Amino acid sequence: MISTQDIKDFIAKEFPQAGCEILSVGTKTSRVRKSIGFDDLRPGGTVSGPVLMSVADFSLYVAILGEIGIVPLALTTSFNINFLRKPTPNQDIIGQCNLMKVGKKLIIGDVYLYSEGDTDPVAHAVGTYSVPPENISSTNE
Amino acid sequence: MISTQDIKDFIAKEFPQAGCEILSVGTKTSRVRKSIGFDDLRPGGTVSGPVLMSVADFSLYVAILGEIGIVPLALTTSFNINFLRKPTPNQDIIGQCNLMKVGKKLIIGDVYLYSEGDTDPVAHAVGTYSVPPENISSTNE
Amino acid sequence: MISTQDIKDFIAKEFPQAGCEILSVGTKTSRVRKSIGFDDLRPGGTVSGPVLMSVADFSLYVAILGEIGIVPLALTTSFNINFLRKPTPNQDIIGQCNLMKVGKKLIIGDVYLYSEGDTDPVAHAVGTYSVPPENISSTNE
Amino acid sequence: MISTQDIKDFIAKEFPQAGCEILSVGTKTSRVRKSIGFDDLRPGGTVSGPVLMSVADFSLYVAILGEIGIVPLALTTSFNINFLRKPTPNQDIIGQCNLMKVGKKLIIGDVYLYSEGDTDPVAHAVGTYSVPPENISSTNE
Repeated sequence: MISTQDIKDFIAKEFPQAGCEILSVGTKTSRVRKSIGFDDLRPGGTVSGPVLMSVADFSLYVAILGEIGIVPLALTTSFNINFLRKPTPNQDIIGQCNLMKVGKKLIIGDVYLYSEGDTDPVAHAVGTYSVPPENISSTNE
Repeated sequence: MISTQDIKDFIAKEFPQAGCEILSVGTKTSRVRKSIGFDDLRPGGTVSGPVLMSVADFSLYVAILGEIGIVPLALTTSFNINFLRKPTPNQDIIGQCNLMKVGKKLIIGDVYLYSEGDTDPVAHAVGTYSVPPENISSTNE
Repeated sequence: MISTQDIKDFIAKEFPQAGCEILSVGTKTSRVRKSIGFDDLRPGGTVSGPVLMSVADFSLYVAILGEIGIVPLALTTSFNINFLRKPTPNQDIIGQCNLMKVGKKLIIGDVYLYSEGDTDPVAHAVGTYSVPPENISSTNE
Repeated sequence: MISTQDIKDFIAKEFPQAGCEILSVGTKTSRVRKSIGFDDLRPGGTVSGPVLMSVADFSLYVAILGEIGIVPLALTTSFNINFLRKPTPNQDIIGQCNLMKVGKKLIIGDVYLYSEGDTDPVAHAVGTYSVPPENISSTNE
């Protein structure tokens, strides 16, 4: 079983541009945080949709690494997001991921996104990821 | 009718962090380009999903501005993307948007994303946007 | 506040062709069941995707009626479903809905679908619904 | 190459409950029709969302059979639909499908749905399908 520290080390080395911090990794779950700055806002001052998507995608990616190990090539195949409320300005965004299926070829999970400190989510995303064949033997379907 | 130059000026002033260039704006359509650099890649060297999403979201936003005028607060309400092929490395990404419905409250469109120079799309996205009430009078449903 | 019996009566009278049974309606939630017969299967013997979608759509519709009252014209605006596991043959399908946002104009919720008696969901759906303007005063955003 | 008649014969024998008629099958495309009756309406008299979804799913399924041959077990893995306009009452629904990717494992396509005789679509759907491994050799990625 891979440790949360292993995943943090991998991300720090191979994916520093993600701009997200790993808070925790559990069984089929992860929790991540992204600091919000000027580059993350769109006209009107709200956090841009693609930034929220990037937090959801990162949270899913981290939860997947926690399940199947360090697999750089797990690829997003489809992604759906609904925006529920306007994020609180200048507040970090938290992503809370839960994997619904960890299959041999396909992994599917959802992510609730929050402005840190709020209880109502600002968005909800669902992503599907394909696992490359060379990693099939290490999955647990 | 708003001109393409008006939209370019608005984006340059109010949304420079989008990192995308407007190539053209037509009736319910837009074409945009994003240069790809290190920050846009994920482990494995492919263009990250959220970067492709950001090009699609920007292309939809520009096409909407072309239809309803400069409305900073048109907000994404839902967004769905399917990844079709691996983008060509180090190639710019082109987004080609077509609005399917321009309603009083809701605007829906899709975007094909390409590695510049290729004819097969790398991804296809559909986004829905809500138009704030104060702009209803200027829409054309 | 509308009662579960009121919703059952409305559905029995106005929407008998739904083919679904209401098990319960709670705060922003509902639980429904659909019996599966030959018409609901596709080649290969599995429950067809559209049948699972119809259970999810019905579960969302019932939960919405529970929140905003009898509003026949609440309309689906977008719907996304991911299929997770093959349903158990000849088993009823259960839909468990949770509304994530009940706004003035837009209601968004998700539904987990199960083969009755199983704990792992066979599918997960997210739907968005628009509420007609004449009903805005009765909503609680 | 499979003929349109082969697909019609397969559907008539194995999937009569689909309730849809095949109008044509072309290269990565299909066109289908569904007659609308009382069972297909929801309160308010509009064609129900799940019925539109079933036409889109059927249109995708037929286009897939046209590409990879008679494969009963091609399974929907995810499905997204946006509802654009109210269908014309008592009018047949037409589905026009275009496959965007025909891969070894995954097939992705979209469908425009119309009230017959209208030029503006009532809905737009995108579906992804997984092809079972035993059929991989016959695909053309």
